[in-house]
Amino acid sequence: MAASEACSSSAATNFKVFRGTFVHSTQEDALVILEDALLGVDSTGKISFVEKGPELEKVSAKFGFNPSAVTQLSPQEFFMPGLVDTHIHAAQYSFAGTALDLPLLDWLQTYTFPVESRYSDLEFAREVYTHVVKRTLRNGTTTACYFATIHTDASLLLGEIANDFGQRALVGKVCMDRNGLHEHYKEETQESLDETSRFISELIKRKYPLVKPVVTPRFAVSCTSELMLKLAEVARNNNLHIQSHISENKDEVKLVQELFPESESYTDVYRKHNLLTSKTIMAHGCYLSDEELKIFHQTGSSLAHCPNSNLSLCSGLLDVRKVLSHKVKLGLGTDVAGGYSPSMLDAVRRTRDTSKALKIQDPAYQTLTWEETFRLATLGGSQALSMDDQTGNFAVGKDFDALRVNVAAPDGPIDLVQNDGPKVLLEKFLNLGDDRNILEVYVAGRKVVPL
Amino acid sequence: MAASEACSSSAATNFKVFRGTFVHSTQEDALVILEDALLGVDSTGKISFVEKGPELEKVSAKFGFNPSAVTQLSPQEFFMPGLVDTHIHAAQYSFAGTALDLPLLDWLQTYTFPVESRYSDLEFAREVYTHVVKRTLRNGTTTACYFATIHTDASLLLGEIANDFGQRALVGKVCMDRNGLHEHYKEETQESLDETSRFISELIKRKYPLVKPVVTPRFAVSCTSELMLKLAEVARNNNLHIQSHISENKDEVKLVQELFPESESYTDVYRKHNLLTSKTIMAHGCYLSDEELKIFHQTGSSLAHCPNSNLSLCSGLLDVRKVLSHKVKLGLGTDVAGGYSPSMLDAVRRTRDTSKALKIQDPAYQTLTWEETFRLATLGGSQALSMDDQTGNFAVGKDFDALRVNVAAPDGPIDLVQNDGPKVLLEKFLNLGDDRNILEVYVAGRKVVPL
Ligand SMILES: [Zn+2]
Ligand SMILES: [Zn+2]
Repeated sequence: MAASEACSSSAATNFKVFRGTFVHSTQEDALVILEDALLGVDSTGKISFVEKGPELEKVSAKFGFNPSAVTQLSPQEFFMPGLVDTHIHAAQYSFAGTALDLPLLDWLQTYTFPVESRYSDLEFAREVYTHVVKRTLRNGTTTACYFATIHTDASLLLGEIANDFGQRALVGKVCMDRNGLHEHYKEETQESLDETSRFISELIKRKYPLVKPVVTPRFAVSCTSELMLKLAEVARNNNLHIQSHISENKDEVKLVQELFPESESYTDVYRKHNLLTSKTIMAHGCYLSDEELKIFHQTGSSLAHCPNSNLSLCSGLLDVRKVLSHKVKLGLGTDVAGGYSPSMLDAVRRTRDTSKALKIQDPAYQTLTWEETFRLATLGGSQALSMDDQTGNFAVGKDFDALRVNVAAPDGPIDLVQNDGPKVLLEKFLNLGDDRNILEVYVAGRKVVPL
Repeated sequence: MAASEACSSSAATNFKVFRGTFVHSTQEDALVILEDALLGVDSTGKISFVEKGPELEKVSAKFGFNPSAVTQLSPQEFFMPGLVDTHIHAAQYSFAGTALDLPLLDWLQTYTFPVESRYSDLEFAREVYTHVVKRTLRNGTTTACYFATIHTDASLLLGEIANDFGQRALVGKVCMDRNGLHEHYKEETQESLDETSRFISELIKRKYPLVKPVVTPRFAVSCTSELMLKLAEVARNNNLHIQSHISENKDEVKLVQELFPESESYTDVYRKHNLLTSKTIMAHGCYLSDEELKIFHQTGSSLAHCPNSNLSLCSGLLDVRKVLSHKVKLGLGTDVAGGYSPSMLDAVRRTRDTSKALKIQDPAYQTLTWEETFRLATLGGSQALSMDDQTGNFAVGKDFDALRVNVAAPDGPIDLVQNDGPKVLLEKFLNLGDDRNILEVYVAGRKVVPL
């Protein structure tokens, strides 16, 4: 008996078990609610079981943990999968919440490039990147797909900081060899390629378990054909993700047509440069034609929908329903600082707003349900980043990336009056909640909030 | 010397003086920034002076206060006028953040009327109304224009609670004598009039300094001609405000045309029933024609723009620029719970989103600037409620209704990186801030937050 106790006590230190409500999405159901469930996380941070609460004795015997070591959630609490921000410019966080009065191309030249050019200064980079990683984790972003700047060392620093704080991240050193700010913020083609190679090999060498490089041509306007072709080669040779922007605003689409007259469409530009792979994520896509969406579907490339940014810069209203009907993978993104909010809860809300604005224009339009937006912010994002084998919901075998939410958190933004069930609690959190409701954040089983 | 000190010390107890940055709006300028200003509040809660900081000695001598008793703001702090919520349904707060999947008329029957019918229960009313008043004050709403329910006693309770917590409020007992929920939530015409009279006389009798009754026919769909005509009489005889809804959604506009075939427009219905006065505020107005806006201008009636609600219920996108060009007074409203957020900061943000969605549809459209939305949420709201003689900005002689904002509040939602000036600080607060940034709230000179 003593030996057995010692054994289960030892197992318990490697094992976390939670009992309470779990909400998540599957391919079949936008919202699955598991009430009084038991979820176990093994020593490697993976979900080892999801069982029924009343079967605690049986489950604890099977998995060798002490039933008294189970963490019990309160009735106003639940676990949900961590939020996946599929598109965020870490470097632009310094001016988040300002500078939203110009359309995209002017906005880049006037506000963005001058700020991004400052990241040759590693102290500045450390300050801002630390803020971004801490803030997004606190807001429940367990996975982030980052644009940094053209600066290799600062981009490596972003990877280091994400790793230190325990965030799952793709980090991209930005590549742009034309149409930048003259002198201050532009690379030569060869320089961009050399630095990309250095960035990738350095980052891989560090063996961060959750932080990987992503090949990042800024967008077709900023990149020569030669650069794009060679970056595609780099991605292929290293089996890496690719990220960029596409079809964000009408002037940009027109400019791309002028810059690439031989291409049939914006999507065709990227396809011709071999940048559309099953590990490619493109931000925006507001003006993609059916033909272009078919190419996305065929190549397995995905879209990052950034509704706050699209509204704030007056870029457009993406028809997410149409994208989904083409079976194109789609996640949500904050697009800081074109989007002013670093919270994926904001992205969830603005996704609904955009969908509803489309319905106001066309009463026959079928808006996204709030359950669907919940799925897009979690499982959808993981699929869009081709990470759904590791994260996105509470399937057994995936990493435990999760938020412990208390809708009735003291001093929080939500007043509960009625005895609401878990579905209403989740809806209230998605509409009214903020970081105060997120008691704990786990990435791959490690508690990263509170630190 | 001792006598003089005693004198200024005694004056100081009746006097509050702040030194630092003050931001507000005037009729001429959407944003006026006063840096290193001195603002004095007299014992009756009125702004007695706004002067320059470096002239402290002179000002203190003139107004008889001790210079050392001045409250100095930190560089990341500023005062701004309190937010004015021109349209909020206190009774619907219990389901805020849920039930947003139906259009207006179905939404009323399915979600709203069943909840509102519960306010015959005064304990339930006390719980919800206490939450609403505390929450909106904490969010910086110093003035609220409330719809309660048809229940007189619960509506009086809302007035009592607003008074107890120190909020400036108009409170309306809702009147509706047709098309309600059969039996459960409908009044007879005479009953509605009698109860309105009782509500008004009881509330006036209590002599609350900041809480007044407002005559509240729910909307033309819910009210017979007889009821509307007689309510207009009640308002005129008592010189009271009037509030209702107009032209929120297309089906509603059509239904009103059917119910009032003799009227030229929805606006004409209210005009014919004498409900459009210079103390009338109508919520929404999404589909008002130029002709109807002219009537608003002529009568001096105003609009409450509720963008969250209009998006959430897919009602419409109000063209605020057009309303303003007709010189119609306009304020912002949360319209809880058609709008899910009880925060006027959300109303400010959604006002911008709606304006930008209109620009996405028409690139020539001139969006509202953020400075203009700031004005609408403060001075504009006070004008829409015909209270701009008492509140809305920091003009000398008005009541001191103000928020002390700290953009760098510890554990708040905003990370400051650069040494931003007050204009950027205000913009960041409006886009990214929440109640954690609102250190103190004053209504008529009384500190109501923190309690
Ligand atoms: Zn972007
Ligand atoms: Zn309303």
